Amino acid sequence: MGNSLRTRLYVSAPLHTAVTVPLSPEQVHYLRNVLRLSAGVELALFNGADGEWLGRIGELGKDKGAVVPLRQLRAQAQTPDIWLLFAPIKRQGVDLIAEKASELGASVIWPVLTRHTDVARVNVERLLANAIEAAEQCERLDVPEVREPADLAVILANWPKERTLIVCAEGGEGRKPLAQLVNTLPSGPIALLVGPEGGFAASELELLARQPFVHLAHLGPRILRAETACFMALSVWQSLKGDAAR
Amino acid sequence: MGNSLRTRLYVSAPLHTAVTVPLSPEQVHYLRNVLRLSAGVELALFNGADGEWLGRIGELGKDKGAVVPLRQLRAQAQTPDIWLLFAPIKRQGVDLIAEKASELGASVIWPVLTRHTDVARVNVERLLANAIEAAEQCERLDVPEVREPADLAVILANWPKERTLIVCAEGGEGRKPLAQLVNTLPSGPIALLVGPEGGFAASELELLARQPFVHLAHLGPRILRAETACFMALSVWQSLKGDAAR
Repeated sequence: MGNSLRTRLYVSAPLHTAVTVPLSPEQVHYLRNVLRLSAGVELALFNGADGEWLGRIGELGKDKGAVVPLRQLRAQAQTPDIWLLFAPIKRQGVDLIAEKASELGASVIWPVLTRHTDVARVNVERLLANAIEAAEQCERLDVPEVREPADLAVILANWPKERTLIVCAEGGEGRKPLAQLVNTLPSGPIALLVGPEGGFAASELELLARQPFVHLAHLGPRILRAETACFMALSVWQSLKGDAAR
Repeated sequence: MGNSLRTRLYVSAPLHTAVTVPLSPEQVHYLRNVLRLSAGVELALFNGADGEWLGRIGELGKDKGAVVPLRQLRAQAQTPDIWLLFAPIKRQGVDLIAEKASELGASVIWPVLTRHTDVARVNVERLLANAIEAAEQCERLDVPEVREPADLAVILANWPKERTLIVCAEGGEGRKPLAQLVNTLPSGPIALLVGPEGGFAASELELLARQPFVHLAHLGPRILRAETACFMALSVWQSLKGDAAR
């Protein structure tokens, strides 16, 4: 079947033999009209729980389709527990953040509404679709959880205290270089928070600094766009403590 | 003048008092029609040599304009000597690489033609325009040098031997995690090479492995898009050895 295993599909159904997994209308369209595949072609399947499976397209009609799991190719691997929180920006940037955060192995993607957030509405479905597409292409065995946007103060008030929150903020006092901070933190669950392009409001920085689980970091002397800061923070953490460190 | 100093322009002329710096037609259009500025407004200027200057728009006509340097705001800072070589990909990805490599402080951006490079022509002027725009926005005091594309074999044959070339390649033997490699290399000039999405050809990997200045690295278990690999490699290097490490 040549390169068809380059086609990887995320499905929500359990994967084992003796089941048939229905395809969503979007998946039917993608396989049939974009990739021009047909019944009988083999591809890879994953669902975030059962590893990666070799599957075969069992049916691919105009409106519906299904795949049949044949055998497991890879066991489910545990992925690093690293959350990315970010203040949403213009749509193109948010799309890129969802895509790249998935590629860079974030386990949770969470839009945070701050004083200087200039986007009122975030399309969470669209974020998730971008994250899934990136997961399919980068050979992840799971898909990041994409959370509904929430206010910074609400998130902090309900924060799981055992999870360290690394806040990447420009300039100011008390910020360590991110790599130095990551290397000195005790092991344990981590979240990265990247601020909005206008920066956090002073009251927000004070609120953050008061939280016992917060550590402040900087990303160097240049003023990064929000999406670039997200890529950098995830890249550094994965390279020092995540699965790119091994 | 409020936020007008957020406007930063890269110019090629020397910056000192007693000169008038002509603006390019693109700069005239940008200042006049996009930002809707006019003569008398203050902005920041840099040229990669003379630091950052406060300037004033002296003239802003329909077809021509000029700025007048008033006084130096920041001295020229030395930026890390870090080259980024990458195999060009589809246009959108190349645009992103130029933009983000500039934000992430690359000193040289160099498209490399490999066996699996699927782009025949690279618009170097467009790359440079993206790099300049990003430099203006991220408050760099210089602009990366964007080189003409060249074949991998030609680049290697003419390589400056004192510069370590870190090749980021998927899978295979002999690759160390990038952070580990960066931390163990002696100090000195560095270049990062990110391969094409189809990977390097076997003969190219052999050629690379034979070079005494080459070290092979990996970026973790996920298959990154070429642009993501560029962002990750630069982010990690800057955070461990560059100006984001301090």
